[in-house]
Amino acid sequence: MSDFKQAALDYHALPTPGKISIALTKPAETSADLSLAYSPGVAEPCREIAKNPDDVYKYTAKGNTVAVISNGTAVLGLGNLGPMASKPVMEGKALLFKRFAEINSFDIEVTHKTTEEFINTVACIADSFGGINLEDIKAPECFIIEKALNERCSIPIFHDDQHGTAIVTAAAMINALEVQGKDIADANIVCLGAGAAAIACMTLLIECGASREHVYMLDRKGVIHTRRDDLTEYKQLFANNTDKRTLDDVIAGADVFLGLSGPNLLSAEQLKKMAPNPVVFACSNPDPEIHPDLAHSVRDDLIMATGRSDYPNQVNNVLCFPFIFRGALDVRARKINSEMKIAAVHAIRELAKEEVPASVLEAGSETQLSFGKGYIIPRPMDPRLCKNVALAVAKAAVDSGVAVLPLPDNYMQDA
Amino acid sequence: MSDFKQAALDYHALPTPGKISIALTKPAETSADLSLAYSPGVAEPCREIAKNPDDVYKYTAKGNTVAVISNGTAVLGLGNLGPMASKPVMEGKALLFKRFAEINSFDIEVTHKTTEEFINTVACIADSFGGINLEDIKAPECFIIEKALNERCSIPIFHDDQHGTAIVTAAAMINALEVQGKDIADANIVCLGAGAAAIACMTLLIECGASREHVYMLDRKGVIHTRRDDLTEYKQLFANNTDKRTLDDVIAGADVFLGLSGPNLLSAEQLKKMAPNPVVFACSNPDPEIHPDLAHSVRDDLIMATGRSDYPNQVNNVLCFPFIFRGALDVRARKINSEMKIAAVHAIRELAKEEVPASVLEAGSETQLSFGKGYIIPRPMDPRLCKNVALAVAKAAVDSGVAVLPLPDNYMQDA
Repeated sequence: MSDFKQAALDYHALPTPGKISIALTKPAETSADLSLAYSPGVAEPCREIAKNPDDVYKYTAKGNTVAVISNGTAVLGLGNLGPMASKPVMEGKALLFKRFAEINSFDIEVTHKTTEEFINTVACIADSFGGINLEDIKAPECFIIEKALNERCSIPIFHDDQHGTAIVTAAAMINALEVQGKDIADANIVCLGAGAAAIACMTLLIECGASREHVYMLDRKGVIHTRRDDLTEYKQLFANNTDKRTLDDVIAGADVFLGLSGPNLLSAEQLKKMAPNPVVFACSNPDPEIHPDLAHSVRDDLIMATGRSDYPNQVNNVLCFPFIFRGALDVRARKINSEMKIAAVHAIRELAKEEVPASVLEAGSETQLSFGKGYIIPRPMDPRLCKNVALAVAKAAVDSGVAVLPLPDNYMQDA
Repeated sequence: MSDFKQAALDYHALPTPGKISIALTKPAETSADLSLAYSPGVAEPCREIAKNPDDVYKYTAKGNTVAVISNGTAVLGLGNLGPMASKPVMEGKALLFKRFAEINSFDIEVTHKTTEEFINTVACIADSFGGINLEDIKAPECFIIEKALNERCSIPIFHDDQHGTAIVTAAAMINALEVQGKDIADANIVCLGAGAAAIACMTLLIECGASREHVYMLDRKGVIHTRRDDLTEYKQLFANNTDKRTLDDVIAGADVFLGLSGPNLLSAEQLKKMAPNPVVFACSNPDPEIHPDLAHSVRDDLIMATGRSDYPNQVNNVLCFPFIFRGALDVRARKINSEMKIAAVHAIRELAKEEVPASVLEAGSETQLSFGKGYIIPRPMDPRLCKNVALAVAKAAVDSGVAVLPLPDNYMQDA
């Protein structure tokens, strides 16, 4: 076993199993403390909430708690490993919520037979939380589940594999096109992959100005076109009225390649055929559709992004999900709508254009970062993300009418 | 509003709402940390668990996590307040699990239509946890729910309002009878109340040696007897073949009165009619079936216990539930069976006979405690409880064949 693999296993196992625990936020030492925390004192907040349901946000942790919920049907890139094998990822997500946005989060893995049973289960427990982050649920069930839960629940339901990926990808893509001097409305976009993330990315890019006619999405059978009769309703939305059938057909002259598929599916020959100044996002993890070293050796006019932390321009969901929930929770948004997602896109992409304070750079890793081919999107550890993204999202929630509370005074001014 | 009520509300609201939060148990500062905690490192424990399901206990927090689950249908003594108004109690329970037994616990409130829906919901999420503590669920649904979940789940399911109450009550009761020089097998026992707690208490007392023929249980309609045709299957188990119909009828000559009903339902006149050296447990909270001051003014030969912390002999579930789960989790018991409950009863009652170290006494509250009428059961803050009860329970789980793991070496020797 490699040193890294062993280190990852040790990290999870030692000194205690797992990554999260419970902490108390109130004193609990003396009998007097416990008479407030539990019987008889606890009866008072119960009575208040029974009289005024909104008081659950005043007297309990609900408002700052997000459940990370999965069924383990699409764990990372590993496939359907089942609910239990997904648990380290879900605990990891909870860890990231806490680390980046001070949101209290814990994981729930659902073992179920039907999609309806999953939906029912989550709907029945949803009121316990301020929001729900769905994770690693395969398509097309993830679309059905998210839609049904959004209809049944009055708290934000967010499938990060779809929308977190889409927001961060769109932010990076819009910046990349700007650096390359291309107009998103005219850009020919090839999207290799037609899973949940791909469909969410293309939906959001079109909302951000991309032209549906210029989008070519490919699944395992090739280009998704209007004469295919094997398409789900989700893929049908991206069916292109074209005679092109293969990646070779569509890559010629393309401005953008977005890979959300698998390793090494874009060849050097294909990359050579793209339009001048192309944008190549090879997001398959850990092995991208084309390795950055190979891509740069073939063309020097490209902008490249991957999911990898060891190359520039990492497309990483952690740039978004902690902060979109932070903003949503702070104004008690009833859902996360398009306005909030687009606000997050622009907050992230604008941050990449700001001067990077020295504190953002990890010691020794580099001396400077400035907006351009090698820096189209902020770094995951950038502490300005929370303030900028949460503020933009909270404002958008208020402006679009889904917030129960107004924007707090001086919101995020001290963050 | 009284000072205490305001203090209870302030405790819950300030400085942040609620009582629990999430803490990280592993480093999460640097990019290197996060590459172990999340992608790409997290794939390693996922793969291991997919290969060997038991490894979920090695690499995740499951094994030391207990969900506190309610539907809010019987919140404290306040009735059916609904799931949201029960949340302060459930968070309080989570706080007690952490405070007393270092178990990580969080609360889930279930909003549901049918009992079947509640059962399904909990069964679908159960694998996420090491155990489930059911709380504040009304009878008779609580019996159906607990039975169904025990059949469907392979982790301990424990309805504390039933079994925690029963265990602590039985421990105190057996000690009280011993102090009064009475044999439990001969004792005439009047149980006022026929809810979940009462049924669980009487079931366990009979398992501990009480005679079913000497038990008189009363519901709102009076004595539960064999000629009534309005009894649930749960009450039928306690139907006495007797001509006695009222509390007045059965209290005359009774050795034991156990109140699990409501305030002031036992009169001084009725208390006077009990047998010499009676045992009176008036557990209605916060106002007992007979006030201790009144009871002691009427008879000086009684032993009295209540649910109140401001009088001696407090029957408090916190003496049991954190530690029965501690023991069950530490040997990975698949359930909490009768053997484990009875082991807990005896561990608690034996601790009351041990010398009380000065550290157990809260500063200034008293100078000495020794086994007798005023001290039949340990104090809730007694730090010896965890060791004694968890050890007894873990041993009983191993001996009765429901433990997956053996007793750890030197288990609880350092506790």
